[in-house]
Amino acid sequence: MGYSDLDWKAINTIRLLAVDATLKANSGHPGAPMGMAPVAHVLFNKFMTFNPKNPDFLNRDRFVLSNGHGCMLQYALLHLFGYAVTLDDLKNFRQVDSITPGHPEAHDTPGIEVTTGPLGQGFANAVGLAIGQAHTGGVFNKPGYELSNNHTYVFFGDGCAMEGVASEAASTAGHLQLGNLIAIYDDNHISIDGDTKVAFTEDVSKRFEAYGWHVQHVADGDHDLEGIEAAIQKAKDVKDKPSMIKLTTTIGFGSKLQGTGGVHGNPLKADDAKQVKQKFGFNPEESFVVPQEVYDLYNKHAAEGAAAEQAWNDLFKKYQSEHKELGADLARRLAKKLPEGWAKKLPVYKPTDAAVASRKLSEKVLEDIHEVLPELLSGSADLTGSNNTRWKNAVDFQPPSLGIGDWTGRYLRYGVREHAMGAIMNGLSAYGTVIPAGGTFLNFVSYAAGAVRLSALSHQRVIWVATHDSIGLGEDGPTHQPIETLAHFRALPNIQVWRPADGNETSAAYYSALTSTGTPSLLALTRQNLPQLENSTIEHAIKGGYVAVEAENADLTIVSTGSEVAIAIEAIKVLKDQHNLTARVVSLPCWEVFDAQPKEYQLSVLPDGIPSLSVEVMSTLGWEKYSHEQFGLNRFGASGPYLEVYKKFEFTPEGIAKRGKLTVDFYKGLKPRSPVNRAFQQLI
Amino acid sequence: MGYSDLDWKAINTIRLLAVDATLKANSGHPGAPMGMAPVAHVLFNKFMTFNPKNPDFLNRDRFVLSNGHGCMLQYALLHLFGYAVTLDDLKNFRQVDSITPGHPEAHDTPGIEVTTGPLGQGFANAVGLAIGQAHTGGVFNKPGYELSNNHTYVFFGDGCAMEGVASEAASTAGHLQLGNLIAIYDDNHISIDGDTKVAFTEDVSKRFEAYGWHVQHVADGDHDLEGIEAAIQKAKDVKDKPSMIKLTTTIGFGSKLQGTGGVHGNPLKADDAKQVKQKFGFNPEESFVVPQEVYDLYNKHAAEGAAAEQAWNDLFKKYQSEHKELGADLARRLAKKLPEGWAKKLPVYKPTDAAVASRKLSEKVLEDIHEVLPELLSGSADLTGSNNTRWKNAVDFQPPSLGIGDWTGRYLRYGVREHAMGAIMNGLSAYGTVIPAGGTFLNFVSYAAGAVRLSALSHQRVIWVATHDSIGLGEDGPTHQPIETLAHFRALPNIQVWRPADGNETSAAYYSALTSTGTPSLLALTRQNLPQLENSTIEHAIKGGYVAVEAENADLTIVSTGSEVAIAIEAIKVLKDQHNLTARVVSLPCWEVFDAQPKEYQLSVLPDGIPSLSVEVMSTLGWEKYSHEQFGLNRFGASGPYLEVYKKFEFTPEGIAKRGKLTVDFYKGLKPRSPVNRAFQQLI
Repeated sequence: MGYSDLDWKAINTIRLLAVDATLKANSGHPGAPMGMAPVAHVLFNKFMTFNPKNPDFLNRDRFVLSNGHGCMLQYALLHLFGYAVTLDDLKNFRQVDSITPGHPEAHDTPGIEVTTGPLGQGFANAVGLAIGQAHTGGVFNKPGYELSNNHTYVFFGDGCAMEGVASEAASTAGHLQLGNLIAIYDDNHISIDGDTKVAFTEDVSKRFEAYGWHVQHVADGDHDLEGIEAAIQKAKDVKDKPSMIKLTTTIGFGSKLQGTGGVHGNPLKADDAKQVKQKFGFNPEESFVVPQEVYDLYNKHAAEGAAAEQAWNDLFKKYQSEHKELGADLARRLAKKLPEGWAKKLPVYKPTDAAVASRKLSEKVLEDIHEVLPELLSGSADLTGSNNTRWKNAVDFQPPSLGIGDWTGRYLRYGVREHAMGAIMNGLSAYGTVIPAGGTFLNFVSYAAGAVRLSALSHQRVIWVATHDSIGLGEDGPTHQPIETLAHFRALPNIQVWRPADGNETSAAYYSALTSTGTPSLLALTRQNLPQLENSTIEHAIKGGYVAVEAENADLTIVSTGSEVAIAIEAIKVLKDQHNLTARVVSLPCWEVFDAQPKEYQLSVLPDGIPSLSVEVMSTLGWEKYSHEQFGLNRFGASGPYLEVYKKFEFTPEGIAKRGKLTVDFYKGLKPRSPVNRAFQQLI
Repeated sequence: MGYSDLDWKAINTIRLLAVDATLKANSGHPGAPMGMAPVAHVLFNKFMTFNPKNPDFLNRDRFVLSNGHGCMLQYALLHLFGYAVTLDDLKNFRQVDSITPGHPEAHDTPGIEVTTGPLGQGFANAVGLAIGQAHTGGVFNKPGYELSNNHTYVFFGDGCAMEGVASEAASTAGHLQLGNLIAIYDDNHISIDGDTKVAFTEDVSKRFEAYGWHVQHVADGDHDLEGIEAAIQKAKDVKDKPSMIKLTTTIGFGSKLQGTGGVHGNPLKADDAKQVKQKFGFNPEESFVVPQEVYDLYNKHAAEGAAAEQAWNDLFKKYQSEHKELGADLARRLAKKLPEGWAKKLPVYKPTDAAVASRKLSEKVLEDIHEVLPELLSGSADLTGSNNTRWKNAVDFQPPSLGIGDWTGRYLRYGVREHAMGAIMNGLSAYGTVIPAGGTFLNFVSYAAGAVRLSALSHQRVIWVATHDSIGLGEDGPTHQPIETLAHFRALPNIQVWRPADGNETSAAYYSALTSTGTPSLLALTRQNLPQLENSTIEHAIKGGYVAVEAENADLTIVSTGSEVAIAIEAIKVLKDQHNLTARVVSLPCWEVFDAQPKEYQLSVLPDGIPSLSVEVMSTLGWEKYSHEQFGLNRFGASGPYLEVYKKFEFTPEGIAKRGKLTVDFYKGLKPRSPVNRAFQQLI
């Protein structure tokens, strides 16, 4: 306690940096930074432990700005505390190639934990960060060695409070009794449509209580620094529940338009900016001013953080000698390395092995690798038995008081909350010590599209175990049968979409997903059984595509994925018997990985001069990239036993052969170039 | 009150039809129907007004099974009450081409209001149905003529309660004080992962109270028919709040596995089915048995519904003579016809008109047509000023008590709840008297992917006003700039994705969206200004694609959409000046509509023999369908002023010309066929 003029000078410095940066960019959101500067000051300077010189220090407190449009608040703090964010970076706010983009991006800016802006995501990321801590502490903390005990703090506004993904995450956090999570709700009554009373009149505090949170209210967030501090302290003292502090603030505090929508998403007018500066005791003619004593104040706190890291490093050194195995494990995880030889545990199949559904093949992978990969945390959005995401002896990640698991548990019960699962996995990945994998039906990954997009944008290694990947799920019918889903995610940059055809391809998909540290992966897996293919090996499949059946002087290449590869192979005989045509078959389980192969290899798989036909039981969109003609399903599916459904849509050897013949006829005499030839490179 | 053995016989008939149908299909979910048969019986037979012979009767009570996996409950009720669902249809449960698919589909089965199964959607649809009623009553009811006063009832389970889309919708319904909405929560403690205590321990009742709902609890939903009836009656009596009744039931009531996950998603074992039948006083050796007295009981209620419709028809006839204009309006809406000559109100532009952002062009359309199209209900997910979705004199749809609108209001404030907005729009469309349009940024339509998919599957005329459609939004940066979004929705069957290039194309997009009664539309609109094109007319654009600039002996066709068409046209001159190449430009604002044109027309737009280059500032996925080479953005965007961002990625006349030249060179001497030529037709 005991706040002085210097504290207010620091707070107003933050406010004015937001005013100046948005004014200079002529773009951005000054309102939230001006309203939340007091709580940010108290939180960062009184409570949070972090070392700006090493933003990756494991036991740092995590901060998430879920109302990411207020990012100038965060950029100002990062600059003032001494992260590698300069005053020039602030002046370059919202400019091309700056490290201060329009919303916070984890991958680009030191000190940004997760990418926020799309509302509700940051809140759910914070739940993931808190789970990451609870698990890491559960596994590694030993008497005398509290290696992990950080808190996660998240700011969120009315917009986040309205988003379903945040509701799902809040319910999850309450269930999990995450005492290390403290959320501060910027109750400023303003969203883009103006007063929140036009759409949002619920009792947010009561709702959070219903989720099992500890809830407080600070009525004057604009002035009551002591009240803010007391509330955060109280929240820290509550160990068995996440805490929400409703903080009533005035958006754009200091502006002539304070408390209105006018200050939410537009820079202040020049004269308004001047009067604010004057009001706060700054020179109205100057911009981007930081009083030295503010730097000094924050540098002092930053130095305490650096010392805390040093102490932690010393403790960890001792730990490593006393708890050799765990110490080595944590050191390895922090170095972002997988254990030596882990991949040898991946199951390998022979063509004579039994036909198995790829969701079961995925289960076998998890069963075989979970011991050697202790950082792997599996889970499901309430489809455990269908997604086959749980290894036999898995312990649930649960608050010990419930008696059904503990903090060391590596299996997460996300509930029927796909969107929160995706965003929580982003937070888990960002925590730094674990690799999250989560299951749902492929069709319902779409519920989480907002989170998957941010996995890709922020380079999180997140694995989606997306079972029931096509009309092959059968009876559940069109409401559950994906048509557009793979096209959707194939169009998303920086994600690997795998659709393995058998056991070795499934192992390859996991190999690629686990070793691609900056890329999320989606594994599309079948409900129905798939035979083991003749030419499938992990080595072949990790190239993203390979020749499953070669043929000399082929008339046709059939290129396919997943469950259709085996049917395509059966079509070879029909083509020969009925049309005297020779076909070869290519399996292309992952486009993105195949695209990264040398062109020479690509041309060996999809050679010039042979017409090609793609076969996949869903939208054909994009298949022109790898084939001349496309056989797919550009309509919704049907409810029925899966073989009946396949038959209805002619995904049979005969149906494929018929279209193969039409393809060969269509290209008769043309010797078409392989579609992998392009006139120019795409921008990437 | 006063329930007899006959009531229990009816209830047990429903239960056993679910047992028999799932057993015969060897697939499906008997648990929820067995648990909810009592409440369904009370609700349908004591409270709901409907006419099975005319499922479209306007003032019928609406029923939504949000836990759609329990659809055998609904199919059994439809059959027993005399809808066009036969006992054979029940025997064909989950078979190809039956009208009893794995989850309820509105478009296929008489009496199904909305398509459910994907959890949470039905709940939010019900909110839309309730809004539809409140608005219709507000507009058309007059003293002595209560034309619209139906209730909407929705059943939902734990899965729906966990989904964010339902949370968003529940908060919205509470805000809107929808007294005509009654939700019954099947509190059976079981989801697919077993006991809900593994993931879901919140206080659902308290949460709904926080949203502003009236909440009751019926502790014994298995037996207490009187309690159920009293609760529903009480809920009906509460006029100023939506009502939620928490009904504690036993999943799979009667089965040996009742109360466990074993009865959720699997048919009963044969011996278990027998013992249930015995327990319920049915012959254990018989299946699909309906006692005649059960038919009689339900037929009696159905006859009352038919009489209610007759009375309504008589009332409406009188209304039409007393309130001529309103009567004609409602009759027209019920006939699903747009007003004569409405399309003449669509704005038309000349090439000399000013450059305008297509979001503003969209606003002009709404301004010009809203008076002639009273069924159009606009709205936004808290981006009104950015989406430009509100005409000047719009009245908000709000509960009158708030003093900021009324039930006749045609502008909906959805809050930052994109997913609920999508699902509520589906309910609004399904209500039958309105056409919903809702705005958000294109990037955040992805949050609502689950709902958009069901718009398409269930043939709802829903219009997404999706502004800020590309990197052209500028400073907000990659978190807000769509890359994959159009590819995603282009891959979805039965939706029109429009990306207009100017004013006439924007008018055409609205024309097509409003006249496509069984198809949702997504309008991708710019933040930045667009010039009016020389050859753009509504007549051209409603073909989905047309020649924007023709050229004889062209070396290249550039095919483009939206904001890039004008840049492509500028590239013509660069190609001529720098490379002596002649280019023609095609605008292709809607693929789906272009695909429906005769092939001859398609070939006139994209002719044989000329190489083509597509230009669109987002994922190239799928563009191979209309072009030989593709210039797009298969990476995330950048934060900065939009012209800088366009320049960074070379979306300039020079950048296009460069790739145009490379395309021409690549196809030198090849005279490639137009990509609209295909070896075979796709299945649709």
